[in-house]
Amino acid sequence: MEKTSTDTLPLTMISSEERETICIFGTGDLGRSLGLRMLQCGYSIVFGSRTPKMSSLLPSGAEVLSYSEAAQKSDTIIMAIHREHYDFLTALTEVLQGKILVDVSNNLKVNQYPESNAEYLAQLVPGARVVKAFNTLSAWALQSGALDASRQVFVCGNDSKAKQKVMDIAQTLGLTPLDQGALRAAKEIENYPLQLFPMWKVPFYLSACLCVFFFVYCVIREVIYSYVKEKKDITFRIAVSIPNRVFPIVALILLAVVYLPGVIAAILQLYRGTKYRRFPDWLDHWMLCRKQLGLLGLGFAFLHVLYTLVIPIRYYVRWRIGNVTATQAITKKENPFSTSSAWLNDSYISLGILGFFFFVLLGITSLPSVSNMVNWREFRFVQSKLGYLTLILCTAHTLIYGGKKFLSPSSFRWCLPSTHIIALIIPCTVLVIKFILILPCIDKILTRIRQGWERSSKFSESAMNGKTDI
Amino acid sequence: MEKTSTDTLPLTMISSEERETICIFGTGDLGRSLGLRMLQCGYSIVFGSRTPKMSSLLPSGAEVLSYSEAAQKSDTIIMAIHREHYDFLTALTEVLQGKILVDVSNNLKVNQYPESNAEYLAQLVPGARVVKAFNTLSAWALQSGALDASRQVFVCGNDSKAKQKVMDIAQTLGLTPLDQGALRAAKEIENYPLQLFPMWKVPFYLSACLCVFFFVYCVIREVIYSYVKEKKDITFRIAVSIPNRVFPIVALILLAVVYLPGVIAAILQLYRGTKYRRFPDWLDHWMLCRKQLGLLGLGFAFLHVLYTLVIPIRYYVRWRIGNVTATQAITKKENPFSTSSAWLNDSYISLGILGFFFFVLLGITSLPSVSNMVNWREFRFVQSKLGYLTLILCTAHTLIYGGKKFLSPSSFRWCLPSTHIIALIIPCTVLVIKFILILPCIDKILTRIRQGWERSSKFSESAMNGKTDI
Amino acid sequence: MEKTSTDTLPLTMISSEERETICIFGTGDLGRSLGLRMLQCGYSIVFGSRTPKMSSLLPSGAEVLSYSEAAQKSDTIIMAIHREHYDFLTALTEVLQGKILVDVSNNLKVNQYPESNAEYLAQLVPGARVVKAFNTLSAWALQSGALDASRQVFVCGNDSKAKQKVMDIAQTLGLTPLDQGALRAAKEIENYPLQLFPMWKVPFYLSACLCVFFFVYCVIREVIYSYVKEKKDITFRIAVSIPNRVFPIVALILLAVVYLPGVIAAILQLYRGTKYRRFPDWLDHWMLCRKQLGLLGLGFAFLHVLYTLVIPIRYYVRWRIGNVTATQAITKKENPFSTSSAWLNDSYISLGILGFFFFVLLGITSLPSVSNMVNWREFRFVQSKLGYLTLILCTAHTLIYGGKKFLSPSSFRWCLPSTHIIALIIPCTVLVIKFILILPCIDKILTRIRQGWERSSKFSESAMNGKTDI
Repeated sequence: MEKTSTDTLPLTMISSEERETICIFGTGDLGRSLGLRMLQCGYSIVFGSRTPKMSSLLPSGAEVLSYSEAAQKSDTIIMAIHREHYDFLTALTEVLQGKILVDVSNNLKVNQYPESNAEYLAQLVPGARVVKAFNTLSAWALQSGALDASRQVFVCGNDSKAKQKVMDIAQTLGLTPLDQGALRAAKEIENYPLQLFPMWKVPFYLSACLCVFFFVYCVIREVIYSYVKEKKDITFRIAVSIPNRVFPIVALILLAVVYLPGVIAAILQLYRGTKYRRFPDWLDHWMLCRKQLGLLGLGFAFLHVLYTLVIPIRYYVRWRIGNVTATQAITKKENPFSTSSAWLNDSYISLGILGFFFFVLLGITSLPSVSNMVNWREFRFVQSKLGYLTLILCTAHTLIYGGKKFLSPSSFRWCLPSTHIIALIIPCTVLVIKFILILPCIDKILTRIRQGWERSSKFSESAMNGKTDI
Repeated sequence: MEKTSTDTLPLTMISSEERETICIFGTGDLGRSLGLRMLQCGYSIVFGSRTPKMSSLLPSGAEVLSYSEAAQKSDTIIMAIHREHYDFLTALTEVLQGKILVDVSNNLKVNQYPESNAEYLAQLVPGARVVKAFNTLSAWALQSGALDASRQVFVCGNDSKAKQKVMDIAQTLGLTPLDQGALRAAKEIENYPLQLFPMWKVPFYLSACLCVFFFVYCVIREVIYSYVKEKKDITFRIAVSIPNRVFPIVALILLAVVYLPGVIAAILQLYRGTKYRRFPDWLDHWMLCRKQLGLLGLGFAFLHVLYTLVIPIRYYVRWRIGNVTATQAITKKENPFSTSSAWLNDSYISLGILGFFFFVLLGITSLPSVSNMVNWREFRFVQSKLGYLTLILCTAHTLIYGGKKFLSPSSFRWCLPSTHIIALIIPCTVLVIKFILILPCIDKILTRIRQGWERSSKFSESAMNGKTDI
Repeated sequence: MEKTSTDTLPLTMISSEERETICIFGTGDLGRSLGLRMLQCGYSIVFGSRTPKMSSLLPSGAEVLSYSEAAQKSDTIIMAIHREHYDFLTALTEVLQGKILVDVSNNLKVNQYPESNAEYLAQLVPGARVVKAFNTLSAWALQSGALDASRQVFVCGNDSKAKQKVMDIAQTLGLTPLDQGALRAAKEIENYPLQLFPMWKVPFYLSACLCVFFFVYCVIREVIYSYVKEKKDITFRIAVSIPNRVFPIVALILLAVVYLPGVIAAILQLYRGTKYRRFPDWLDHWMLCRKQLGLLGLGFAFLHVLYTLVIPIRYYVRWRIGNVTATQAITKKENPFSTSSAWLNDSYISLGILGFFFFVLLGITSLPSVSNMVNWREFRFVQSKLGYLTLILCTAHTLIYGGKKFLSPSSFRWCLPSTHIIALIIPCTVLVIKFILILPCIDKILTRIRQGWERSSKFSESAMNGKTDI
């Protein structure tokens, strides 16, 4: 499922031949690919190379010259060279005077050098106008036209005219330039392609820890316990039964953890009596990764659904039901029907299905293309109202599943309570606090605080402004 | 699953310090957030305030002055003040002469005032060039960088240069400005953030009504009937069995309702003998909410799938099957295998799965990012050909499920027919009419009408043009 | 699920009346719709028509004149006329001198004429500046505002100023103009709306062939075999059992086929000792449709999951289990529990669920709006690491499912091996080769080759450059 060019219109870009000449230093993959694309979009291309010979790899129509000859042909020079080889540029200082140097280089590690490659280049060639751009592109994608991942071109530079020109070139190539400010931003632009899901790290580790903890807990409480006490080997439960105990718990906790910071923030505001004080950093970060936490929760819920639906297919389940039925037939005892069991069973199944349905809905609305189309009121409606509905449904599902067994002593093994009890702590806490917060008397105070009112008189001024201003 | 900044590149926007000064009236949440972002993008910011004191909440680097002092520093003034407090601007009329006033305000209710806030502002300060913009942004999103929902900035104004300037600022802030025309459009722009899924309202209420109707119908026909006639308490069926009867019916009807307006439109065109007459309004509206109808139908189909797959896990089902098997064993009667039952059962299951599969496919292609990538021919292929295939599969699924029971008297209880019969009325009607419409003789006429041909001679001219023109 | 205007802000575009006059030749659907939208965006519109009479269909506010009168009123003329009727323009050559003619026409078939309509127009009216644009729009979408599918406007032309002007108009209309170069590109732009999923063709036919082959294979091996040998009619298996045998096999093969070209490419590079030679065309094409292959595989996997989960609901399965249990009860034989069977069964179920989970994850990340938000490192991580994990899980799932039966003679019927054996050939091949390729000794060579190193000395120069340049 690699990216392909379906997404792009496979038109050979044929140009009206009016565009200027661009010089590219370096004939590596990215240099050649950029050159090819620029040629297709109507630019004249001249490559600068240590060994200026035309090679069959270079796009036809391009010229190859020595560095200094090539540099003289154009005002814009793309530096498709690794930082380690920038030194030769010092010899060209004079030729490069006033020219736009576009640094497209990347490093192998985050913060590999004290300063960014682009800033280093600017130091080496003081007279040139250095712009950082194009480093997030992939040579393969440029060549094949499969550009959906990397259409964005982050641009920064101290000379705004030079920057604008590079942005215009990017636009002409069919890319999306994004102005990132002065050259100081180059460091972050260079680190960007080296990132690996930075926002997902904390949520991922959190859910991994929860999984491991509950897995070990269940193994001890079920497999080892029954081996020690009853000498029964039920290790096979590790494959399906125990994951299907761990996944729903982790899903529910992650869902609750999405709504916990909002509740904490409300308590903080109530306690402080003002909204004009920053939240602690951990709370801010927590708030920013709620989407990731929720999506991971949805993943676990999805697994729980699949693991639950395969139950009747499992050998063990079939074997057990077959045995029970056969025994019933042999002993000729009628198994009486319990309406209350049917009610309990059917309602926790129904709650679970509805909870999962709304969870999936939440997931779909957090797809970028969907969330781009709703306004803030709609977004808040979905993520807050529907979110709490989901949390209530899933918590109720777990509560009813646990049923009466909850506090019966038989559910304690080696003093370890059932996993459901542990799973319900955070969701129930969140729901109870939320319920208290929406009591009219408290909700009124909170709403006033959020509109700018302050309890203490110290900040009365900003409080007054808060009411006047948006 | 709140929005976070994963989506945005978390670059500190560091600017080349060449951009101009912008003045912001009001130091509320949105004012401060806009100021912060503008500072990050290289603008100088001066806040205008009644009580011009620097506060720790204001972004560092900004100046705070009195309103009139601040206004003199810049040509562009962001009005981050509630409409109720605009009066003080009359005193500043002279200072504001010729300046660009950007109205960012919102109201609490749709059409709260007779004229839009921006038009009111333009009346108050006749010499200023008023532009409406930025009102759909969220202060929190601006500050946290989590902008995926609200990157769009609707801009309108009577002075095109002023408007262009505000659009340029929005672009620089990394937002997507959308020109909405003259200041008269401000009313709609101000109503936009107050909307709550306007296109979903009718489809939602329709499906809610269908759900309630069929739910009550099933409760009467099954639960109450068997209580009255057989004194059996089967209320527990309300939790799973009856929803699983209601949801597929509603899903099928909604799917049919998606294709009904197209069929009605074709009949109208055939009847009128021309395409050059507008459809009635209700038909136009119906056509415009087909996507929503279909997606709601998909939601119900999804619930039906889940409710069906949990059947073997249910206590009631296990109990019944166990009893049946035990009885079979006790009476030692062989249960003969019926190939025709196996065929019927397997084929309606298979049709249902395939129908659901194509339904999901339709849903995926209506995701905005997917539908953006297909051309009209492909889109019509998916939504029309694949859509009718889905409708046929789902209708056949229901038909076979009903099986022979359909018209047997036993399926009538209190004269109420089985729900499946009711469910099939609209889908079958749509399919039969569609089948008639694609008969070659009728299809030929319809195609000619759609290419501009007209039956009556009255419009012969436009008919001739219709053939020449696109 | 047709497109509707939810996506677009339903603002009446009300304009500041400063924009220029645009002339539209032809009053067909597209001409009128374009005119309406342009009027809404503030342009003055004058229609040119053979029979210049105002009709109720034309947008109010527009003028209707004869062709030559209309042409004199504007510098920009939209040609909303079928190519077959272009001849009359020769009479207007003088009036059209220097004007921008926008060709919006489409053909009925790919490559219907030797030259594109726009180039034909340019030949007919040599003095005019012809621009191709707007041909991918739908009249209905323009009128209803439901533009999400066709916001893109491909523009090409030899006169860059004329082209820029048309792109500006497109932008003002709220569309997304994309510069496609010189007028030679018009042919491809005209073919674009006639395409029907060009990238999906090969993957679709491949999977269709696989489906048919395995279906026939299974029917022969199971249904016909047991009819011939045991005179048993098990044709009903065609509805569910056999599809559920075919779909997982096709899904697994398609998934393996996604990763096969990457492995072949690596072997080619190792064999050639250089990366500086183009891959054969078939390999390039194969690489470009990996996404489609994977998504089709996901579709089959989804069907397999549904077909598997309905197993316990099927009449045949219930009947068989009931009989087995009853027999067990009658013969009073205890059915012994086999821990190893439970392990095998539970682990292949678990592997299948996890494999499907990651497969869905791969599918979600290939949604354009999701893949737009990740950088190349993240994209490669998901599609390569997670992809191979999925392949390993699914292959293991199939391997364990086959279990010990694999090579037992009883699994051969009429010398035909079990379908699972055939299904596993490609996945196992890919995994084995991949395993060899990531052995440190081979991986080191491959990495060096991909960094530009070459085994032979012939290309030593480019090899040296390859190390210096990006």
